[in-house]
Amino acid sequence: MTAHETITAETIAFDDHALILIDQTRLPGELVTLRCTDIRQTHDAIRRLVVRGAPAIGIAAAYGVCLAGDQTGPPTTKQIYLDAIEYLATSRPTAVNLFWALDRMRDVVESTDMGDLPAKLLDEARSIHAEDREMCHAIGRNGAELLADAANVLTHCNAGGLATSTWGTALAPIYHLHQAGHKLHVYADETRPLLQGARLTAWELSQAGVNVTVLTDSMSGSLMRQGKVDAVIVGADRIAANGDVANKIGTYPLAVLARHHAIPFYVAAPSSTFDLALENGDLIPIEQRDRAEVASPHGVTVVPEAAQVINPAFDVTPSELVTAIITERGVVHSPDKSKLADHLS
Amino acid sequence: MTAHETITAETIAFDDHALILIDQTRLPGELVTLRCTDIRQTHDAIRRLVVRGAPAIGIAAAYGVCLAGDQTGPPTTKQIYLDAIEYLATSRPTAVNLFWALDRMRDVVESTDMGDLPAKLLDEARSIHAEDREMCHAIGRNGAELLADAANVLTHCNAGGLATSTWGTALAPIYHLHQAGHKLHVYADETRPLLQGARLTAWELSQAGVNVTVLTDSMSGSLMRQGKVDAVIVGADRIAANGDVANKIGTYPLAVLARHHAIPFYVAAPSSTFDLALENGDLIPIEQRDRAEVASPHGVTVVPEAAQVINPAFDVTPSELVTAIITERGVVHSPDKSKLADHLS
Repeated sequence: MTAHETITAETIAFDDHALILIDQTRLPGELVTLRCTDIRQTHDAIRRLVVRGAPAIGIAAAYGVCLAGDQTGPPTTKQIYLDAIEYLATSRPTAVNLFWALDRMRDVVESTDMGDLPAKLLDEARSIHAEDREMCHAIGRNGAELLADAANVLTHCNAGGLATSTWGTALAPIYHLHQAGHKLHVYADETRPLLQGARLTAWELSQAGVNVTVLTDSMSGSLMRQGKVDAVIVGADRIAANGDVANKIGTYPLAVLARHHAIPFYVAAPSSTFDLALENGDLIPIEQRDRAEVASPHGVTVVPEAAQVINPAFDVTPSELVTAIITERGVVHSPDKSKLADHLS
Repeated sequence: MTAHETITAETIAFDDHALILIDQTRLPGELVTLRCTDIRQTHDAIRRLVVRGAPAIGIAAAYGVCLAGDQTGPPTTKQIYLDAIEYLATSRPTAVNLFWALDRMRDVVESTDMGDLPAKLLDEARSIHAEDREMCHAIGRNGAELLADAANVLTHCNAGGLATSTWGTALAPIYHLHQAGHKLHVYADETRPLLQGARLTAWELSQAGVNVTVLTDSMSGSLMRQGKVDAVIVGADRIAANGDVANKIGTYPLAVLARHHAIPFYVAAPSSTFDLALENGDLIPIEQRDRAEVASPHGVTVVPEAAQVINPAFDVTPSELVTAIITERGVVHSPDKSKLADHLS
């Protein structure tokens, strides 16, 4: 990987020889990019959360397939591409968009002559990227109706432009309304352990001129009790057939709190986030991450060695607690298996 | 203040010339004490959370009154003591035990001849300290009955030995059961922003040989949904006449989550924590602390300058969500104004 360089950048770009990512581990301190020129660098960037957010992971992995091969040139057999796809699929376990994007790339490998493959794979990755931009804008339009009367919206983690190609999923309706002159205020949970809400959501919203307030994850309940939250909106990493939602750890307690306070709880995600093969959310594999993310924030040890630590990256919110799911296709109120099957068919 | 020294220490000690505190801002990295020899140092130690936890603040402030006066010797007028009491009362606003302890000291000032005052004030501070030890053990006995069938108990912040003279309030029943050979496992919320759960609760429990697991505040809901929490127990900084409880920010969401999962939610606190002058919890003043605690943990800026930050130190849990309040006098199930008035009379 070449050195970081300061830029005004898109979350993800591709210049035919390299995948160029905003290094999200360095925000908000520094806005720098990282160039990945092979699949190992791409895998490492996804694993380390240089690029994160379910849709962005899918796009990055698709471009990563285009980097298969070695110093001597592009792959000479389909097997090398298929091995690259298998390898990239091991970078993170929960976001289904990763597997969805890699499945599309695999279909191209299997249906294309070897000579045409490099060009066709790049076309497919660029399509996935372009569709994502469209998706963000469509979710923005669809979700804006639900948030039109809200003054204060609470979100968790980052499901914004840094989690996708452009506006994001949960933040897309907020950007849509902001552009239309409707001035929302956003409460951004900091989202321990990796602080994507504080570091990323607060950064991209304030860059865009949206009024944003950061709070610790433990403060949302108190805000709701005081009537200061009109709606909660979050993204998703995987949604089961019945509408159960896996998303960043801390999402489920927000859904319970929102229900307790009769506040609507919205999930915004592209249709690629649905995994209809899974009957319910308890079947979604939950990534367990390193002790150090909890025990040693910024390298300072805050948990004594003798204590154990848990670090699940996601939790599951049952569909009963979801007021509506917003996709690029529209809005599903009180989602259940049959409504979602109709919506996605 | 003299330099820190490494020790095996009690949370609070007094050697006639100085108040000696474990510096809780340095745990778990270093176990060192801080000597306060005047009221300004005592005020600063309370404000900076060198000593924290409602009962411990009360004890420290009481000893602090004994340090009134200046280099030239002890106070020559009662007014100097009364001014010291007023000054120490401004160190933190929410924990009522601070005002309760200072009121006891004021009563001594007002009812004692000047010549006898230094000795009488020290007697009173030592009484407050000794009563606190008794209180901890009594809460331990009373609460042990409620937790006797629990295998996994969740707590928030630190309401342990570091928040009192000895066993603490919320942790007292756990220490009681542990000594009796009943091996509980404790989940300790890390408790952002200042991580008292990770730094202090995990430290003191593991020092005592109690099995403890640290998690971020956002993970408790998911644990409850998985059936891994049998009871929640927390301390309190102030309890209103109707049983509403002010405690560390993040307590209220735990109470809502516990109710949603039909898990008992217990509050353990000495009777000095009750403020019967306040009808309900919404009248309790909530301390708002510095932006930096949220925005710059360990000196690393994680929130962009353009974003706002909120940092309330406490929240209020309505009594309807409290299964029982445990005091040194016994247990009040489903607390309300009349039951609490009877209990405290």
